[in-house]
Amino acid sequence: MTTLVRLCAERDIRVVSVWGNEIDRVGEAEALNALREHGITVSGYNRIVPFTPGYLEQARFELERAARFGADHVFLFTGGLAQGDRDLGMARRRVEDEMGHLLEIAKPLGMKLAIEPLHPMLTGDRTVVASVSHANDLCETLGPGIGIVIDVYHVWWDERLESEIHRAGSAGRLLGFHVNDWLLPTKHLLTDRGMMGDGIIDLAAIDRLMREAGFEGPVKVELFSRDWWERDPAEVLDVALSRCEQIFGGTQRAGTDTQS
Amino acid sequence: MTTLVRLCAERDIRVVSVWGNEIDRVGEAEALNALREHGITVSGYNRIVPFTPGYLEQARFELERAARFGADHVFLFTGGLAQGDRDLGMARRRVEDEMGHLLEIAKPLGMKLAIEPLHPMLTGDRTVVASVSHANDLCETLGPGIGIVIDVYHVWWDERLESEIHRAGSAGRLLGFHVNDWLLPTKHLLTDRGMMGDGIIDLAAIDRLMREAGFEGPVKVELFSRDWWERDPAEVLDVALSRCEQIFGGTQRAGTDTQS
Repeated sequence: MTTLVRLCAERDIRVVSVWGNEIDRVGEAEALNALREHGITVSGYNRIVPFTPGYLEQARFELERAARFGADHVFLFTGGLAQGDRDLGMARRRVEDEMGHLLEIAKPLGMKLAIEPLHPMLTGDRTVVASVSHANDLCETLGPGIGIVIDVYHVWWDERLESEIHRAGSAGRLLGFHVNDWLLPTKHLLTDRGMMGDGIIDLAAIDRLMREAGFEGPVKVELFSRDWWERDPAEVLDVALSRCEQIFGGTQRAGTDTQS
Repeated sequence: MTTLVRLCAERDIRVVSVWGNEIDRVGEAEALNALREHGITVSGYNRIVPFTPGYLEQARFELERAARFGADHVFLFTGGLAQGDRDLGMARRRVEDEMGHLLEIAKPLGMKLAIEPLHPMLTGDRTVVASVSHANDLCETLGPGIGIVIDVYHVWWDERLESEIHRAGSAGRLLGFHVNDWLLPTKHLLTDRGMMGDGIIDLAAIDRLMREAGFEGPVKVELFSRDWWERDPAEVLDVALSRCEQIFGGTQRAGTDTQS
């Protein structure tokens, strides 16, 4: 993580998202120092673990640590269906209740919760929130303190995308914007995301939707790609920045993810 | 195909869907004879090819052949985005226009067109219709002569499923019901579907939705699985029938797909 922070600073990337497991690897003090030293601020903190019994204590720890890192928001991942469970409607109702409990912990800490809808191919094992629409519904029910991060990979296919981004923007709940690309063919459900421009997502169009909806934050690169993980991190950052400049017109809005 | 027809007849499966390429392999006369001999009727005919230039003549051929086979409906597959195209909204508007052209050919032949929404992980390369909701919108715009086939694999994740099946049923446009299962983990985007009961889809619940929406047709098994393709077809049918009986309560509603 400290290397990535340095590489980012060298490229004038001033905002990152951080992962708890990456912080654990170097220790909290060193991670905080590296960020401070390079003048880098934290946007999203990953993450509140899936909602399994006893997770609330762990969630409190993550929220408190996110506050120490000055994060803007903390990602929550609901998890998919429990072993042997097929009742998706019930799982979704449970998730709503659990988000309510998390809000009670997050609010006194001044931490926002972020729902990131994931692609429907991940509904069974990663999160039961599969659309921006569903995330908007949850936020409306739960009230202030919880918002949405849009990752193009998960939502680009949705015919409701324009109206739901607009709906989220109007309510002031757009917390983040992650970019990458959908490759053809896609060889793996989790680790075959593409570099921006190598796939079929109309990234410039979705960026416009986000800006029109009032989102003013950075574009965050999040690749999850076995291919790109194998390359030199500096090279990956340089390619990502150059693509961001081509597609989004300028690097001043770029950020990155310590585990991207 | 003739073997499968015989195996179905032996198991009292009286409805199948057929594929043009399977018919080509044995010849149209022999395929028709096999069906007649065993008293088996054709539900869906696969398929109208993706909407690429010049496809309308091929579509006319498929529709006429489907009529000769006494099919109830013909599947249309829109294809995904054209090479180099990223404008999904425009692709979807084009698809609506093309469906209108196809309807003009299909109606005089007494053939219904069937839209089968496919999973959003297939939007880029298979079909741009990724939800029952979108399919319902298309049908409403296009008017009579076009309906929807629900394949659980593609739509089970959708939080709108209940209301959209109900909407399709109220309009009398539910043409078919395909079953299989979503495996955890899923190893391939196209060929890793599960046998009913081996995955996480609440098949009994979706079957209830279909019946409540007025659908009275057969449950059709469609597996697309490298694993099951390698097994003895008779064994696959027997397992499928036994699972259908357990989950849907009786085999009298079962059908199959010659390429399943």
